[in-house]
Amino acid sequence: MAKPIVERVREIIEKRNVDCLLFTDLSNIFYISRFKGFEGIALIVPKDGAPKLYVPKLEYERALEESKNTEVHVYEERFEKTIKEALEECKCNKVGLPYYKVSFWLISALSKNNGNIKFVDISKDIMNVRSVKTFEEINAIKKAIKITEIGFAVALESLREGIRELELAAKIEYAFKTNGGLEVAFPSIIASGANSALPHAIASTKPIRKGELIVVDIGAKYEGYCGDLTRTLSLGSVSEKLKDIFYAVLEAQKEAIRNIRPGIKASEADSIARNVLKEYGYEKYFIHSLGHGIGVDVHEFPRLSSKSDEILKPGMVVTVEPGVYIKGLGGVRIEDDVLITESGNTILSTYPRDLIV
Amino acid sequence: MAKPIVERVREIIEKRNVDCLLFTDLSNIFYISRFKGFEGIALIVPKDGAPKLYVPKLEYERALEESKNTEVHVYEERFEKTIKEALEECKCNKVGLPYYKVSFWLISALSKNNGNIKFVDISKDIMNVRSVKTFEEINAIKKAIKITEIGFAVALESLREGIRELELAAKIEYAFKTNGGLEVAFPSIIASGANSALPHAIASTKPIRKGELIVVDIGAKYEGYCGDLTRTLSLGSVSEKLKDIFYAVLEAQKEAIRNIRPGIKASEADSIARNVLKEYGYEKYFIHSLGHGIGVDVHEFPRLSSKSDEILKPGMVVTVEPGVYIKGLGGVRIEDDVLITESGNTILSTYPRDLIV
Repeated sequence: MAKPIVERVREIIEKRNVDCLLFTDLSNIFYISRFKGFEGIALIVPKDGAPKLYVPKLEYERALEESKNTEVHVYEERFEKTIKEALEECKCNKVGLPYYKVSFWLISALSKNNGNIKFVDISKDIMNVRSVKTFEEINAIKKAIKITEIGFAVALESLREGIRELELAAKIEYAFKTNGGLEVAFPSIIASGANSALPHAIASTKPIRKGELIVVDIGAKYEGYCGDLTRTLSLGSVSEKLKDIFYAVLEAQKEAIRNIRPGIKASEADSIARNVLKEYGYEKYFIHSLGHGIGVDVHEFPRLSSKSDEILKPGMVVTVEPGVYIKGLGGVRIEDDVLITESGNTILSTYPRDLIV
Repeated sequence: MAKPIVERVREIIEKRNVDCLLFTDLSNIFYISRFKGFEGIALIVPKDGAPKLYVPKLEYERALEESKNTEVHVYEERFEKTIKEALEECKCNKVGLPYYKVSFWLISALSKNNGNIKFVDISKDIMNVRSVKTFEEINAIKKAIKITEIGFAVALESLREGIRELELAAKIEYAFKTNGGLEVAFPSIIASGANSALPHAIASTKPIRKGELIVVDIGAKYEGYCGDLTRTLSLGSVSEKLKDIFYAVLEAQKEAIRNIRPGIKASEADSIARNVLKEYGYEKYFIHSLGHGIGVDVHEFPRLSSKSDEILKPGMVVTVEPGVYIKGLGGVRIEDDVLITESGNTILSTYPRDLIV
């Protein structure tokens, strides 16, 4: 974790035997340059020297202020023409770029009348670099988690019969902003009653009723880094069946976290949680993977999924979020953010998990 | 505007002589199917029959609830494998897709070991279809604008010496949510004093001071459609120089709106506003284009820019937003949303524009 981010990214050039790296997506550009763009920006990382950032005129002053250790260029021509000329200027014929994050339009435009240009996919390389966080990144994530936890306190304070899901979301996001979380990591999920059986139900106009479970999956962003936590609350007491689901999910989460350490496969973490739910007979209702890395994006490497071939390493920050969703009845998800350390892991979130009665 | 969206999209199939259309980006999928996805979703529009939506397991129930006139399929295999098999099943060898919105990764995966598959770019076609709104879309945009205007009322009520930009943003977004605007169209821009000279400065921790201009560029989303309005306010009276800039921008906007009607070039609207600012000597500080279409995305066709080759048509909804930005001094932007009608245009936003003293 000791090397600066730019140097870690630059190692991909040699590894993939390319002349330079090209990024056009906002997340990778922010990761490397600290500039938060909107549209039509590009970053070239050459073998030597500072990365070159290309921005439209209206972003020039802000790019100069925000970006670090980069050379800022303003362009007035068409975007693809600008990149084409920039690649020619630095004599880059073999360009590494994340295929996953670059449009086919750009590739077609750069290839047009240019038989010499070659592209190499660096999707996995850049995601692997990003998966292991620097100390500064871990601090930003910790702060994002602290702000996110304020959101749960606000939710519990505000929870009452008849309050609409989106009112809770509005109060939580207000607290995020006024506590330094300038953006949300994703649209807040406040899913009560039958809605809680939909893993990605965002807050709706539905009023919350007594006896319902309420899945609150929220995340603030701090200095560009995401928190991502879920608590399942109840308003008044819930049925024995819902309690049974809740404690099964909680045990699955605890058991997975107990076993997360460097060297284990990401897929193994997933199967540990899945096995606990199997014992309770809820396995078939666990319809997503156990978790994912968080960072600049709310979904990053490693993926804690049965299909993942990744190995956990110190410096990774992952969510651990088993869930059970039963149509018509409701759902439970409990999610914490975990830093993988040299000897095991540290749970970065400290908010109480047992919030149903 | 009479034809349903799916039928208007389907016309691209014949026009481009392809076997089907494939979409993998969230905006186009929402536009056609009304399903709001997150990751790993695809929509195939065949020559005949309902569009086919492919979603991961965790989205299946929500997709069934939300999507309209589509066939929902759940997939458990890898994403690219699912699409490959779906294209084979409907015997689609020549696939139309928006190159601008599809990753090179997906194209590479679909082409692998499949010499028969051919791709045709439909970026402009789909953006052209989307640029002319249906009545339902116009109603959703009108509602989004109404909610956005509540945000200005909240900003004016809350504006006082020392309030931080992000507190204003938090209050505005709280009002959006509790008035039915479940999401923001973009991160709120509250840019005061020197920050106002940066067109894309999002709300910061800076306290607002007397004598400053405050650019408030905000937008709520309603049923998936964006509002996008800007007002420049002042806290107390501002210098004569800032007033001069303000009235120049206001005149540029009014003059452009007076001339917007079907049949004129989008680039002409831009140059009308630019010419007004030229008369005042501020042309070189107008560092972006005049406006853009709004809809599911906050930036759509047509682009009201000097480089645009588009012609304005009835049913288009565009922003008209000239701005002047002078480093160290401040900036002014005034933005309204305008519907192009058969005979001219209608300004959809009614909030007063003259808010400086």
